[in-house]
Amino acid sequence: MSQNEVEKSVPTLADVASLANVSTATVSRCLNSPDRVGKDTRERVMKAVNELGYAPNFGAQALAARQTNTIGAVIPTMENAVFARGLQAFQEELGRHGKTLLLASSAYDAELEEQQIRALVARGADALLLIGYDREPEIYRFLEKRGVPTLIAWSFNPAETRTAVGFDNRAAMRALARDVIAQGHRNIACITAPTRSNDRARGRVEGIRDAKVEAGQDPAEVMIVETPYGIGTGEEAFRQVMAQAPDTTAIMCVNDVLAVGALRAARALGLRVPEDISVTGFDDIEIAALADPELTTVHVPHREMGRRAAQRLIEVLQDNVMGQSKELPTEIRMRQSLGPARKA
Amino acid sequence: MSQNEVEKSVPTLADVASLANVSTATVSRCLNSPDRVGKDTRERVMKAVNELGYAPNFGAQALAARQTNTIGAVIPTMENAVFARGLQAFQEELGRHGKTLLLASSAYDAELEEQQIRALVARGADALLLIGYDREPEIYRFLEKRGVPTLIAWSFNPAETRTAVGFDNRAAMRALARDVIAQGHRNIACITAPTRSNDRARGRVEGIRDAKVEAGQDPAEVMIVETPYGIGTGEEAFRQVMAQAPDTTAIMCVNDVLAVGALRAARALGLRVPEDISVTGFDDIEIAALADPELTTVHVPHREMGRRAAQRLIEVLQDNVMGQSKELPTEIRMRQSLGPARKA
Repeated sequence: MSQNEVEKSVPTLADVASLANVSTATVSRCLNSPDRVGKDTRERVMKAVNELGYAPNFGAQALAARQTNTIGAVIPTMENAVFARGLQAFQEELGRHGKTLLLASSAYDAELEEQQIRALVARGADALLLIGYDREPEIYRFLEKRGVPTLIAWSFNPAETRTAVGFDNRAAMRALARDVIAQGHRNIACITAPTRSNDRARGRVEGIRDAKVEAGQDPAEVMIVETPYGIGTGEEAFRQVMAQAPDTTAIMCVNDVLAVGALRAARALGLRVPEDISVTGFDDIEIAALADPELTTVHVPHREMGRRAAQRLIEVLQDNVMGQSKELPTEIRMRQSLGPARKA
Repeated sequence: MSQNEVEKSVPTLADVASLANVSTATVSRCLNSPDRVGKDTRERVMKAVNELGYAPNFGAQALAARQTNTIGAVIPTMENAVFARGLQAFQEELGRHGKTLLLASSAYDAELEEQQIRALVARGADALLLIGYDREPEIYRFLEKRGVPTLIAWSFNPAETRTAVGFDNRAAMRALARDVIAQGHRNIACITAPTRSNDRARGRVEGIRDAKVEAGQDPAEVMIVETPYGIGTGEEAFRQVMAQAPDTTAIMCVNDVLAVGALRAARALGLRVPEDISVTGFDDIEIAALADPELTTVHVPHREMGRRAAQRLIEVLQDNVMGQSKELPTEIRMRQSLGPARKA
């Protein structure tokens, strides 16, 4: 199947136009707004369509009709159940409206994300779902120019103007940090993914500092360790914290995967959780409740977020109006891994 | 951004042709094989391209050049790390060759998978990666007709003719079942995903029966419980087995997620693993080694499979030849959850 053979085997809009002796615009019109075309022309075009076996949904229709019923989404990773669950609900809701989801996974790489956004637009996605606000303004300009409605999920920041269906990462972590501080913790460390190009992680780190300030403590006391998301990296980061700041009594991780790594490292070091050290997570994915001890974390309504995001995009494609941003509530799940600070 | 506005805002190949006063075929040639077009024509076309702000990679180029540098893949679920890991490696290798991966997740639904395959082809995917062999012959005919090279992964079955980069699910599970039987187990149950449209799960179940036959035992003795993949469903299936067949001494699960559920149910029922009952998994994803007790399972070379699958598809796009199938070896990971059968 060489390029040439493929070219021969797939008839194009231009082939139809040529055979029917009309312009390509007329072919498009016949396929998409047949009532706007005279009967004779329509019959001639449809005859050519059938004769050539032209399949209007092979790209050409996308160009002609600007309706592909395909929605694109770029997520930072497939390796975290948080996105798998949310996007599954997103896809189910899209499916109920006859839309197909095409997905790309950027591996938290801003450049790769841009390439994937451009590919999805080039492949005719009607609309896009993106995770978080952080990206080059040039990308948003590109999407506006192309007229591709774009919705942000996983973040809700009242200071941002773009439409989002998400939650306030900073406020959610602030609430958990208040509970940590209320248990007598002062020497708090934070294990986070790199915060550059990741407003969710950055917001969560800021939330811890906010709570320190509220409690009359110095936010600079929070030891921050940045490492890529992972169980192994969480383990290493935990060891680093305990080596550099052995007085730490609570380690707040910006997601559950890092926190599970921290729990493993604690066990390996012979530290009891929460008696010797408290550990908290964020997301409330399945492993949070499976961990031993069970992980205290922030529950994120992934499935509801996915479902509502799909509804919002379906609305904008139907009605041409992108609605207001929607903030979803998060909840603290108090389990076993947070306890009172040990005595100094 | 109504359909009309979008139509107005995005210039088409036909717009360029009209402004340059040439055929659309000439525009395509200018963009894709400029040396095949006279200098004057080329300059006129490129002037029109620039004037209109025509972006050749918006679908039109796909139609014109049949080269989108986009590879499609349909996986059964995002909610299992096994696919996340394998596809991440697949994507990384594609990226090294300038290809972008667009993904769809079928939720183990054959009809949805077909819809997604058609959408990926309609959106111009140069080639496809599909998981397992099982699907309607009509879909394979459709892909052949459209000239879209398609590679199977996650399965390798010498009896099949389609090109695959995968492993022999049946032989891999047979090897593990031999070890289970060698530990004195005879009353073996199997917890599996529905085997219809899932040759991987079906092969693994058959592998257990094969080992029973080899050992001179009746393969019909294996109690089979089908349930969707999940930790919760694995728990329920374990309870069902123990309620219906309390003599069971080993439960072989066709993936690690089900097996982790089985371990949880065993603990909840006060059964010690492996003293009272042995549990095995398949895949060797991260939770297998994190489980307590650590899970005996079959290690699948996800990342290598993803990398090799990408190389194979890149080759076929370059050289027009789909190579031979490639079988990758699996390995048994003996951990703590398999032990000798308890005395009757």
